[in-house]
Amino acid sequence: MRMIKWQNGTVITPDQTKLPLQEVTLEVKTVAQMAEAIKALRVRGAPLLGAAAGFGMALAAYHSTAKTRKKLLSELETAGTLIKSQRPTAVNLFWGVDRVLNKAKSIRGTIEEVKAATILEAQKIADEDAAQNRAMGKNGSVLIEDGDTILTHCNAGELATVEYGTALGIVRAAWEEGKKIRVIADETRPLLQGARLTTYELKRDGIPVTLITDSMAGYVMSKGLVNKVIVGADRIVQDAVFNKIGTYTVAVLAQDHKIPFYVAAPSSTFDLTRKAEDITIEERRSEEVTYVGCQQIAPNDITVMNPAFDSTPLKYVSAIITEKRVYYSKDFGLFKKMVQ
Amino acid sequence: MRMIKWQNGTVITPDQTKLPLQEVTLEVKTVAQMAEAIKALRVRGAPLLGAAAGFGMALAAYHSTAKTRKKLLSELETAGTLIKSQRPTAVNLFWGVDRVLNKAKSIRGTIEEVKAATILEAQKIADEDAAQNRAMGKNGSVLIEDGDTILTHCNAGELATVEYGTALGIVRAAWEEGKKIRVIADETRPLLQGARLTTYELKRDGIPVTLITDSMAGYVMSKGLVNKVIVGADRIVQDAVFNKIGTYTVAVLAQDHKIPFYVAAPSSTFDLTRKAEDITIEERRSEEVTYVGCQQIAPNDITVMNPAFDSTPLKYVSAIITEKRVYYSKDFGLFKKMVQ
Repeated sequence: MRMIKWQNGTVITPDQTKLPLQEVTLEVKTVAQMAEAIKALRVRGAPLLGAAAGFGMALAAYHSTAKTRKKLLSELETAGTLIKSQRPTAVNLFWGVDRVLNKAKSIRGTIEEVKAATILEAQKIADEDAAQNRAMGKNGSVLIEDGDTILTHCNAGELATVEYGTALGIVRAAWEEGKKIRVIADETRPLLQGARLTTYELKRDGIPVTLITDSMAGYVMSKGLVNKVIVGADRIVQDAVFNKIGTYTVAVLAQDHKIPFYVAAPSSTFDLTRKAEDITIEERRSEEVTYVGCQQIAPNDITVMNPAFDSTPLKYVSAIITEKRVYYSKDFGLFKKMVQ
Repeated sequence: MRMIKWQNGTVITPDQTKLPLQEVTLEVKTVAQMAEAIKALRVRGAPLLGAAAGFGMALAAYHSTAKTRKKLLSELETAGTLIKSQRPTAVNLFWGVDRVLNKAKSIRGTIEEVKAATILEAQKIADEDAAQNRAMGKNGSVLIEDGDTILTHCNAGELATVEYGTALGIVRAAWEEGKKIRVIADETRPLLQGARLTTYELKRDGIPVTLITDSMAGYVMSKGLVNKVIVGADRIVQDAVFNKIGTYTVAVLAQDHKIPFYVAAPSSTFDLTRKAEDITIEERRSEEVTYVGCQQIAPNDITVMNPAFDSTPLKYVSAIITEKRVYYSKDFGLFKKMVQ
C-alpha cells in the first residue's frame, strides 16, 4: 500500500497522529502544509520523510509563479531550508531536499522543464523507496527463522516508508515466505508509535503481534520470549545508529541476553562522514511526556527530558540490513572506507 | 506526613489513583471497601499495603457483630482471605493480615479484648513502618554523595509507605543532611506511578526531580547523568528482588553502565524461604496498557502483556538497605542462613 502519493499538485498521505482510532487522509497542497505535517509527525518515519521532503519540494515547484529560472531555484532553496528545519536530526529530510534541489539546479532548460524534473525526481524517490524496501526485506529475511519472535521498537513499518517498511519489511518478507513468526511491539513512549502504528499495520496484515510497555522489554527477554530484535534507523554514522529514543535501552538489553540486534535502513540513512558526537539530538516539547492525548499524567510545571532520538554504538549491533546487502558486525569496518 | 490513619472505625488515606491532579481523601469504613481500594491501586506501595491490610483487619474487627470469640475469629479469617486475594504478588498484604490475625488468635480474653488487640496491632504496624523508614533512610544515606543524581523507578516514596518512604526515604535523608542531590524519575508505565506520584511528592518537598519516559533510562545513563539507582521492592526472595515491572530493565542498564543499583525495603519484604521461580507474577488487565486514563492508545482487540512485577536476580543488585542495616552484595550469602 502506497503511503504517499502525488496527485496533480496535491500530496496524499494518512495523518499518522490520528491512527489507529481514525483513518484521516491528508491533502497537502503547499510546502508550508508539508512542513507543518512533518513537524507535527503527521508524516513520520525516516524513509517516508525522505519522500515527503521530495514531494514538499515538488509542491514548491508546481505552485511557483516565478518568472525566471533563478527565481524558481531561489524559491526551492527557501522551501528546502523550511523543510529541513522541521526535524533537525532526520537526515532523510536533508537527503530528500538536496536530491531534488540538485536535480532542479542541473536542468538548464525552461522553467517548465525545471518544474517537471523536480516533480519527477520526487516521484523517483518514492518509487525507489518502495523497491528498496522489498529488496531490504528479501536481504533481511534470511536472518529470520521459522518460529522466531521478533521484538521491535517504534514503527519502522509501512507507515514509516513509502511502502512495505524497513524493519517490518523484513518481518513481512519472512511472513510471506511462510515462516511462522510473531512480533512483540514496544509501545514507544512518548508518542506511542509502537502502540498506535506497529500493532495497527501488523494486525491489518494478519501477522501476530503483542503489545508491551517499553519497560517490559527486559522482562520478555529474560523469560526467553524474544529471539531477535529488529529496529529501523533515522541516521547511521561511522560509530553508531541514531533511532527513536529507547532504541539504545533495547540494544543494551538484547546484548545482555545474547539476542541478535538488527538494524534495517536504506543506504540513504548512512551519514558516514560523521560520528555520534557530531550529531545534535532534537529535544521535543515536554508536553509530549506530561500528556497522553488530552490526558495530563504529571503535575504542572515539572521538569522533563524529551530527546527524540538516542544513539546506539555499533558494538551493540549484530547486523545492518540495507537494500544492497547485510552488513554483519565484522563488516562495520567497511563504513570508514565507504566515505573515502 | 501520615499516609494512612485510623479514626474511630474509619481508615483515612489519599486516593492515589487521583493524584497528582486531584487530592481526594478516602474514608474507608469496611473491609470490602479496603479490598476494593487495594485492588484498584487507590492504596498502593508495598509497605503501605502492609498497613492497609492490618487496618482492613481492624475494620473487620471493629464493625463485627459476632457474639462469640470463635465467630469473630472466623470473620477475621474471611476478611484476611479477601484482602490477600486482591494482589497475590504483594507479600506485605499477607504479612499484614497474618500478623494481625495471629495477634487476635493469641488473645484469650473477651470479644472486646480481641477487637481492641486487633486494632492496636494494626496501629503498631503503621507506627513501626514510619519508624523503620526513618531508620532505613539513615542507613541508606551513607551511600549517597553530595552532587549525586539518583534514578528511581515507580514510587517507593512516602506515598508507598505510612510515612517518609523507602527508596525516597533515603533520598529524603540525604537531602535533610544537606547533600545537594537530584532525582530522575522513570514515568513507570503502565500506571505511571513515577510521573504521577514520585514527581508530586518530591516537588512538594522541594527536591529537584526530572521526569523521563521509561525507555530514556539507557539514554540518561549513557550520557553520564546518573550516579546511583535506588528502587523499592515488593518481595525479596533468596535469589531475586520482585518489584514494579521495568525494574529489571533498569537493573540491567545500571550494570552495563557500572552504576550502583540499590534496593530499599523493610525486613517485612523478605520472603527468604522462596526463590524467584516459586513466585507467580500478577498479570493485570490489558486496558491498563491500551488506555491512559480515558485516552485509548492502541487498536481494539490487540493482544497485550501486562505483568505487574518482574524479578531482578541478585547479581544485578549492589546493596539492599533495610531498617536494620545495609546488605552489600558480599552479604547476600547471609540470606540463606537467615531462614535456618
